[in-house]
Amino acid sequence: NSALDAAVPAGEPPAALHDAMRYALLAGGKRVRPALCLAACVVSGGREAWAMAPAAAVEMVHTMSLVHDDLPCMDDDDLRRGKATCHVVYGEPIAVLAGDALLALAFEHMASVDSYPPDVDPAKHAARVVRSIGELARCIGSEGLVAGQVVDLEMTGSTETVPLDRLEYIHLHKTAALLEASVVIGAIIGGGSEEQIERLRKYARSIGLLFQVVDDILDVTKSSEELGKTAGKDLASDKTTYPKLLGLEKSREFAEKLLSDAKEQLADFDKEKAAPLLYLANYIAYRQN
Amino acid sequence: NSALDAAVPAGEPPAALHDAMRYALLAGGKRVRPALCLAACVVSGGREAWAMAPAAAVEMVHTMSLVHDDLPCMDDDDLRRGKATCHVVYGEPIAVLAGDALLALAFEHMASVDSYPPDVDPAKHAARVVRSIGELARCIGSEGLVAGQVVDLEMTGSTETVPLDRLEYIHLHKTAALLEASVVIGAIIGGGSEEQIERLRKYARSIGLLFQVVDDILDVTKSSEELGKTAGKDLASDKTTYPKLLGLEKSREFAEKLLSDAKEQLADFDKEKAAPLLYLANYIAYRQN
Repeated sequence: NSALDAAVPAGEPPAALHDAMRYALLAGGKRVRPALCLAACVVSGGREAWAMAPAAAVEMVHTMSLVHDDLPCMDDDDLRRGKATCHVVYGEPIAVLAGDALLALAFEHMASVDSYPPDVDPAKHAARVVRSIGELARCIGSEGLVAGQVVDLEMTGSTETVPLDRLEYIHLHKTAALLEASVVIGAIIGGGSEEQIERLRKYARSIGLLFQVVDDILDVTKSSEELGKTAGKDLASDKTTYPKLLGLEKSREFAEKLLSDAKEQLADFDKEKAAPLLYLANYIAYRQN
Repeated sequence: NSALDAAVPAGEPPAALHDAMRYALLAGGKRVRPALCLAACVVSGGREAWAMAPAAAVEMVHTMSLVHDDLPCMDDDDLRRGKATCHVVYGEPIAVLAGDALLALAFEHMASVDSYPPDVDPAKHAARVVRSIGELARCIGSEGLVAGQVVDLEMTGSTETVPLDRLEYIHLHKTAALLEASVVIGAIIGGGSEEQIERLRKYARSIGLLFQVVDDILDVTKSSEELGKTAGKDLASDKTTYPKLLGLEKSREFAEKLLSDAKEQLADFDKEKAAPLLYLANYIAYRQN
């Protein structure tokens, strides 16, 4: 949180832009992505501090995608994390631009030479940084977040039921892609072997889908107050969700399966160092909002 | 142009997104930024091919800024480069998302390991790439394009005349920042010395402001057909421009001064290798649209 707080100056001109960026970024998210990034760095042999700038970056990308998804021309959401959304407070133009600036700031953080670990050869680290930036860039565009949002928008207008593979496409892109990138970036920066990086990528894919299945379940079973956003919105707008397609019980079983798949990938890592990733998988599975 | 064409797959899902990205990217821009990037790489001792991916990236960032600036909630422009703007053709949500995806794709290109020069030590090149990515990221956000657009929007609503320093702030951020980054990235990738990079940065700042002064002059003196966009729009919307603040003659003198400042920075470079940058400065000064 303090890294994110330090990332955007308060009040400096253009003040409206910085205020909107800070408002969206510091609205009290759960910081799951930064936590995954830091934990993956440690389990791969690095130190937490090495991944602090990338951890801030993945949260900036996440925030940017929320700000743009909430826009009137997109999902038109007024409430996010229990507060008015960015465009409601600062207007639509500033919300679009704050999202753009957050995306740029994320890459600025990724490329920040000040954050190079003092105990790693800078040339070796630079190569890891370049690879990480490639991972982050890919998970945003037409293979990631944006692609998921495009297909989600297409589906929202349609009256037919979305088939399971389509729903999975949306979630893999809208949610899992950035969770995967968060983990993989941590693993790369931490100096993990190719085998470790691939195992952590599989872990991340499972918890990425898990994250969304649990989100869908919570939307059916919790109130708006508990969630900090409009509950039942998916049902009300007749949006396809896992509970709607599979029923609540089968959705829960699917979640259990994904959780055990994720845990399996951690088996060969140092137990103590893998503990935070195990904790985060359980947290994602059993969270209440 | 062929690098840009190859960068975004045609028709692949999500097709609407890729089509919109291609539509905006391949609408026939003058490619001034990529040309500057390639020329700066060569004058700094590199080969043109080394900077091809960054050259494509700076054009993607430029295109993204046009797509978002043209949105109904921003400048609300229907015509760009003689064609309907992206949101007019593909709708507002896709235009926002196509911009986001282009921004991500730019960084993907910057970080593309496939584009590493075969004849440069990869570790050395990686450090240059990281530095270049920092340059690109900074020129977009709250120190660059986005900041310029925010202040521009603030001014557009106001009835008072914009003072000259404010106008310069807008142009330095909206236009000059990315031109500067294009040149500096080329110089870094080309392996230029710190002194060369700084000299080219100064060159770029002069032509950056020159670009906008000439743009303002053309808006007053040319028709829409010649420009491929709505001419006289700045006057009609009572927007502050250099001709309005300084008069047409003084604006032309200012342009001449900026051109000679830019040329001065090229004096110590190899004459043959600096020829393209000299040509581009003249082109920016004397272009007719």
